[in-house]
Amino acid sequence: MTTESQGPSPAFQDLIRPFGESCFGCGGENPHGLQIKSHWEGEEAVCRWTPRPHHVAAPGVLNGGIIATIIDCHSACTATAAGYRAAGREIGSEPLLAYVTASLHVDYLQPTPMDGPVELRARVAEQGERRIVVDCDLIARGQTTARGRGVFARMKA
Amino acid sequence: MTTESQGPSPAFQDLIRPFGESCFGCGGENPHGLQIKSHWEGEEAVCRWTPRPHHVAAPGVLNGGIIATIIDCHSACTATAAGYRAAGREIGSEPLLAYVTASLHVDYLQPTPMDGPVELRARVAEQGERRIVVDCDLIARGQTTARGRGVFARMKA
Repeated sequence: MTTESQGPSPAFQDLIRPFGESCFGCGGENPHGLQIKSHWEGEEAVCRWTPRPHHVAAPGVLNGGIIATIIDCHSACTATAAGYRAAGREIGSEPLLAYVTASLHVDYLQPTPMDGPVELRARVAEQGERRIVVDCDLIARGQTTARGRGVFARMKA
Repeated sequence: MTTESQGPSPAFQDLIRPFGESCFGCGGENPHGLQIKSHWEGEEAVCRWTPRPHHVAAPGVLNGGIIATIIDCHSACTATAAGYRAAGREIGSEPLLAYVTASLHVDYLQPTPMDGPVELRARVAEQGERRIVVDCDLIARGQTTARGRGVFARMKA
């Protein structure tokens, strides 16, 4: 069991690499992608990510599609991590477990500034073996600027 | 009045450029963006767009966040075009009219292949002066692979 004093555990994305290493949102080997990284912090999964200038909507404001992308990938990886956790298994262990997005809903509460890092905080709202619902907040400069809910379906082996 | 025989009218995005020319999803001047273009075809607004290899999710499958991005930008531009149409005005005419995303919902029905162009077909589901709801289908190889609904709010002047 990893303890806090041993430092942060590897990101979900680094543990489930064989499945999504090229993914635009979270693949570590996609040089044009967003390369987000997600970790458990207690019951929440957290991702901190800094937009690049071309992720803009209107000047100074983060693009809504990019917001949907980071919420989707962070929440999908959270669902997969939660599936492993519920099974009492290490993330990425065989047989591979993966959840893909069935639906995504995002409420855009206010413009998201893009002149610094943003934070995603996700938690499992409902969990069955074949279907996991994840709620995710996007926080910038201490304000929640968007809220997402994703429904994730377990992939067949 | 432009007729069919005069060829296609300029894309919505080229008529509303001053507002969103850098937008990641639809800005014509964002070299790293998706640069989608949308036109009326009767009552539907249509966009045809070809993914680039880095827009991948799993191999051969278009990323869900990119899907959300093109549905969002196509539908937001459709809302703006519909707002101008309802006012009997040319798209882009002063005073500028723009609608921004209040919420976006996407149902992912099946994997979207990314080895060729995809088509977005959007229509106005509800229209008030301050709020427009747009439904949008994503079609690849003749199959509807995702369906979106966006709620768009009119920006204050």
